[in-house]
Amino acid sequence: MSDFSKMRDVLLALTKKQIAEAVTEDTMIAQALASFDELTVQLNTLTSRLREWHAYTLPELDHIISDNERFVKLIAEKSYTELLKEFAADKSMGALLTDENYIPIQNMAQKLATLYDERGELLNYLEKTLKFRAPNMQALAGTTIAARLLSGAGSLRRLAIMPSSTIQLLGAEKALFRHLRSGAKSPKHGHIFNHQLVQHAKRADAGKVARGLADKLSLCAKLDFFKGEFKGDEYKEALEKKFGGNN
Amino acid sequence: MSDFSKMRDVLLALTKKQIAEAVTEDTMIAQALASFDELTVQLNTLTSRLREWHAYTLPELDHIISDNERFVKLIAEKSYTELLKEFAADKSMGALLTDENYIPIQNMAQKLATLYDERGELLNYLEKTLKFRAPNMQALAGTTIAARLLSGAGSLRRLAIMPSSTIQLLGAEKALFRHLRSGAKSPKHGHIFNHQLVQHAKRADAGKVARGLADKLSLCAKLDFFKGEFKGDEYKEALEKKFGGNN
Repeated sequence: MSDFSKMRDVLLALTKKQIAEAVTEDTMIAQALASFDELTVQLNTLTSRLREWHAYTLPELDHIISDNERFVKLIAEKSYTELLKEFAADKSMGALLTDENYIPIQNMAQKLATLYDERGELLNYLEKTLKFRAPNMQALAGTTIAARLLSGAGSLRRLAIMPSSTIQLLGAEKALFRHLRSGAKSPKHGHIFNHQLVQHAKRADAGKVARGLADKLSLCAKLDFFKGEFKGDEYKEALEKKFGGNN
Repeated sequence: MSDFSKMRDVLLALTKKQIAEAVTEDTMIAQALASFDELTVQLNTLTSRLREWHAYTLPELDHIISDNERFVKLIAEKSYTELLKEFAADKSMGALLTDENYIPIQNMAQKLATLYDERGELLNYLEKTLKFRAPNMQALAGTTIAARLLSGAGSLRRLAIMPSSTIQLLGAEKALFRHLRSGAKSPKHGHIFNHQLVQHAKRADAGKVARGLADKLSLCAKLDFFKGEFKGDEYKEALEKKFGGNN
């Protein structure tokens, strides 16, 4: 019995160790990326709320400043009097609020401003971590796309052994399975759709560009995983030369 | 022509003035309440995200601290070493993170903590504003329910001239129209469902309690709008005496 209980303890300790080791840098990147995305969604909702609230006193501002982060920081940093002077020349359509009623609006803006900063910090963290973990991918695809590919594949290891056609379609799973099931058009690009090379390509060329980009990204993933040399910038230039002229 | 353009200017100024005057204390209460609700939803989502992220390093904490705000503030305020010592006796199931990988998690927690504070501040603002605007309603229904009723009715004026049966069902519009359309059961309570008197009532009595509460709330709304005396506490006691014994 005591042998058994000893064995149980050893096995338990081993399992705990394995679970702990399953948490890698890649998991952390995926979590930071998910938090970044979540924050973006929530900030958009909360900023719409702030816009609606603030529009009671200075509806003009809502139209003048379309960028959400700028809108929030403007209200957070300027005083009510400054804002009125600057954006409505003291003649706003809105109601003039007492300090008591304006302060909650400004408070909310200040808290949202710190959340925007937090989003920036998450991006910094991703940038630093990827520079160390996957410098080639980052150079070619940019931080967010590289992080999305890594998170979609599950780990850098899996990305490195993935065919480039799979990398091309990471993030387009829904469209791919719709295609396989019902014979709808096959997707041409997943996460890499947001890459500027694909964005700037003519519609008819988008598939070709995406294929070329995924091809080089696949090489980058292998270089990054097997600690090869740094060729990301070189690949990027080559692709820009090849496809940039088309536009 | 010049007369016309003068008239136009005067009418425009008048309209602007009317629009500005349409923004009342009640509008501000409704906006603050909507922001409060929005923040609550977003904080729940973002905290789940933080819980998932943090569980890679200290999964034990997720189960021990079920209150979201406490969870966030604990991570925001304590150091990583302190947390490990306190909650896992240095033997966590999770992975041990480097500072570089832990700091982003803690940063996120700190930003969320300020958001929880902001939610508290919004509640303070509502409390202060309602104490001035609708002290009787507040005394009887509590701050959030009173604010919900006010916001649902549109203004204190409309609430004051509303039949108590309408007040009873404010917030249950969906169920009410389902009842009218399809003959489903009629709802017994809207926002006031969350009032402790209704919450603590036996199921069979809930309708009766809700009716009695709405009755007194209707009186409170009239007292508040017409600047009558303060009777909120008295009504509350009477209701507690009448219905409290049933439980």
